[in-house]
Amino acid sequence: MSGRRIDLNSDLGESFGAYSIGPDDQLFPVITSANIACGFHGGDPRAIEAAVQEASRRGVGIGAHPGFPDLVGFGRREMAASAVEVRGDVLYQLGAISAFCRVHGVPLQHVKAHGALYNLASRDREIGDAICDAIAEYDSSLLVYAMPGSGLEQAALDRGLSVFREGFGDRGYNPDGTLVSRRSPGALITDPELAARRMVRLVTEGKLKAIDGSDISLHIDTICIHSDTPGAPEIAAAIRQGLARAGATVSAPGHR
Amino acid sequence: MSGRRIDLNSDLGESFGAYSIGPDDQLFPVITSANIACGFHGGDPRAIEAAVQEASRRGVGIGAHPGFPDLVGFGRREMAASAVEVRGDVLYQLGAISAFCRVHGVPLQHVKAHGALYNLASRDREIGDAICDAIAEYDSSLLVYAMPGSGLEQAALDRGLSVFREGFGDRGYNPDGTLVSRRSPGALITDPELAARRMVRLVTEGKLKAIDGSDISLHIDTICIHSDTPGAPEIAAAIRQGLARAGATVSAPGHR
Amino acid sequence: MSGRRIDLNSDLGESFGAYSIGPDDQLFPVITSANIACGFHGGDPRAIEAAVQEASRRGVGIGAHPGFPDLVGFGRREMAASAVEVRGDVLYQLGAISAFCRVHGVPLQHVKAHGALYNLASRDREIGDAICDAIAEYDSSLLVYAMPGSGLEQAALDRGLSVFREGFGDRGYNPDGTLVSRRSPGALITDPELAARRMVRLVTEGKLKAIDGSDISLHIDTICIHSDTPGAPEIAAAIRQGLARAGATVSAPGHR
Amino acid sequence: MSGRRIDLNSDLGESFGAYSIGPDDQLFPVITSANIACGFHGGDPRAIEAAVQEASRRGVGIGAHPGFPDLVGFGRREMAASAVEVRGDVLYQLGAISAFCRVHGVPLQHVKAHGALYNLASRDREIGDAICDAIAEYDSSLLVYAMPGSGLEQAALDRGLSVFREGFGDRGYNPDGTLVSRRSPGALITDPELAARRMVRLVTEGKLKAIDGSDISLHIDTICIHSDTPGAPEIAAAIRQGLARAGATVSAPGHR
Repeated sequence: MSGRRIDLNSDLGESFGAYSIGPDDQLFPVITSANIACGFHGGDPRAIEAAVQEASRRGVGIGAHPGFPDLVGFGRREMAASAVEVRGDVLYQLGAISAFCRVHGVPLQHVKAHGALYNLASRDREIGDAICDAIAEYDSSLLVYAMPGSGLEQAALDRGLSVFREGFGDRGYNPDGTLVSRRSPGALITDPELAARRMVRLVTEGKLKAIDGSDISLHIDTICIHSDTPGAPEIAAAIRQGLARAGATVSAPGHR
Repeated sequence: MSGRRIDLNSDLGESFGAYSIGPDDQLFPVITSANIACGFHGGDPRAIEAAVQEASRRGVGIGAHPGFPDLVGFGRREMAASAVEVRGDVLYQLGAISAFCRVHGVPLQHVKAHGALYNLASRDREIGDAICDAIAEYDSSLLVYAMPGSGLEQAALDRGLSVFREGFGDRGYNPDGTLVSRRSPGALITDPELAARRMVRLVTEGKLKAIDGSDISLHIDTICIHSDTPGAPEIAAAIRQGLARAGATVSAPGHR
Repeated sequence: MSGRRIDLNSDLGESFGAYSIGPDDQLFPVITSANIACGFHGGDPRAIEAAVQEASRRGVGIGAHPGFPDLVGFGRREMAASAVEVRGDVLYQLGAISAFCRVHGVPLQHVKAHGALYNLASRDREIGDAICDAIAEYDSSLLVYAMPGSGLEQAALDRGLSVFREGFGDRGYNPDGTLVSRRSPGALITDPELAARRMVRLVTEGKLKAIDGSDISLHIDTICIHSDTPGAPEIAAAIRQGLARAGATVSAPGHR
Repeated sequence: MSGRRIDLNSDLGESFGAYSIGPDDQLFPVITSANIACGFHGGDPRAIEAAVQEASRRGVGIGAHPGFPDLVGFGRREMAASAVEVRGDVLYQLGAISAFCRVHGVPLQHVKAHGALYNLASRDREIGDAICDAIAEYDSSLLVYAMPGSGLEQAALDRGLSVFREGFGDRGYNPDGTLVSRRSPGALITDPELAARRMVRLVTEGKLKAIDGSDISLHIDTICIHSDTPGAPEIAAAIRQGLARAGATVSAPGHR
């Protein structure tokens, strides 16, 4: 289907002090939206501001990427945080990144929860509610990035927030539309051409082959490429080229 | 002089997780402006939000109280942070507390640097500049609380920021207008009546007795009572009563 | 039954920087073993050393009290840490507290996992194994404090480690021997006399009344009084007096 | 001069969670002693243990590399910590790394303070004393790595500790034997052959050319190559080869 619009997002700005992480320089030219770390799972004020500036310069949409307060675990370990704690932590992080958007005169476009917080919110409705409470209270015009069918998506919709449904360009899918666990074979798709073919089909036909060979039907608005997947910039570039060739418009939500 | 207006400020919202600190409940009814921790030297999202809510409920002016990223040192140890680091840390903290102001519909009124950051900014112009760059870029309508004659005051004035000059109700002064070091005798004034008499004279006559018995001339707009001074609520209450009796109007800057 | 020996333990040394927590001064004279924080959920080097010194001075047995790396959550939130992470975190914390034992010439007696780590290890055998791997590798003469019947107890026994079975003086029990959740009524027992009667019966008869009125049979070697239970020092003192009156010997394991 | 023995040291094990830093794999085969981070400025339990294991496997001497508690600043910012704080922080870190030495059956050989702590201790005798108090109390057989002529060296000698005097293979020197500031030209020496020639002359003749062309006389026992200097492994390898060719024995102190 020509004319279809799609966003490409990736996690950036996660460096911390002397510690550099992620191929930000290579991903920025290829993606259309950046999920920028907010200091809890990664990202210090310098890294956050650098990512905000680079996104602003390139017209890349800026998203807050709040995570659990677990730097040593990079926000990838689920924590039994209460809804009150999650709401407060998300608000704090939304405010922190917003300061850098404000001084650089660029809007905050979306919120994508990071790592374990995203995963937990996808299946634990109380955590999804806490995140969406924070977003709705802070700025109800912010887009919420969420897995289609997740508790997070439902929590956002229940509050009248706009949802951007997310597909994963570098990950295998189970037949039920969830991601293959990173501990199982088939979790990662690192061949750029394969990733591109899958995403083109997903965007143009709304269909994706699951790990067992069956077809899943999914509607998505944005494609995530994890910045720590080996070859992420090449995967993202191949997906972008494939989509452009297929007639899709690759652009940030804010530029639709 | 009757009609003189004066603000009373104190550091609040510095609790962290299971750790409670400071007599916030007793100080809130007495002060007119609260310097609320922003998470670096103290204050977690729950403590920050609770303080913002309590200030909002009581009509107490809300200030950001950014500090060095040194929780175990409570922001009281000077750090050789660069100007770039200080500016970024202050921006991050301004944004974080602003999120809670925003969701509770209450404005951020002022910025008071905390502990070692305040002290360093008072005498190191580069650090004063870094703090005031952050404030000017973020919101140039924010008041800057500063010691009269300090580098921080000058940095603020140079950027066209409004300054609130600060006196200390619970501290002894050197003849040059600086505070007696906490390691020296006479550093703390814990007698509420003495503190009140000193502050009434300072507000009404612009004069204060230094540790050597000489008189200092100072113009101040706000009086700080440190929340960790023994008997802080009593000291603050005595100062407030004394000032009211002397005909001064004790109020937050925002309500002048 | 006269002659029965029993240990009284409590969590101490959890202060952090400017933040004080827990009635350490009042508990030290009453307990026989101290679980001393190791810096991850609470406790900084000063607090740890002060607690080690006080324990040494009073002949109180010293235990390491390792927790999850979650200061803002005080180690009370379960985290999906891997076994590798838990083993490493426990080793690190065992070493850290051991430094203070070494410079004060006092042995490390036991290990009691803190909060969410203790709870998780009680039912998740992999985490129990990780903790006991660390202990067995570091010093297999260390006692392991564990709930009777827990996975942690079994993990310790499987490695030939000595276990001290723990009862809780300030907590209600379910009929299956687990603790009543802190979110349910009857979770806390704060009446010192009631707590004392329950513990005397538990120590002398091996029986304890559960929340539903039924009797549980339990064999325990040590009684925990949580330092953050309201009135903890009074509860601990009442239990100690009751036990002494009943002819039990209240002493640390090392002094048996 | 043949027969001269010299140690080559570098800072390793500084990775933290998802954050990798430093060419540890390339440096381990070339150096003879490793300064291993202890968790405060860098290094988590996994990184520390991996470095201890690799050092043990290769017969590389293991040193504790304690730093200021400033992860975001990588321990490179001087902090106004008190002597009590520094002593406690060093003890804590010595214990933490010792746990990993103990479980891998390898001795701790030396202590080298990191970054700003090393620099501060070199000129602030009180901080040097605090570090050496910790070392002397913990294990007086530990070697102290220090700049010749520094306050740290003197503090160690005053306590009867053995000192290993350190030269820097990748740094320019001032005529007074201090290092050229990293902010000045000539601070870094990144040409492997030049670095090698300088160090061979320093080891064999006790002389080194300063930035102004004058000769400095220095006696050193160990050469540091900073792991973050560009080309550090090549520099270290060139120095090692040059020394071997000049007849020096490059070995860890423990293997003398």
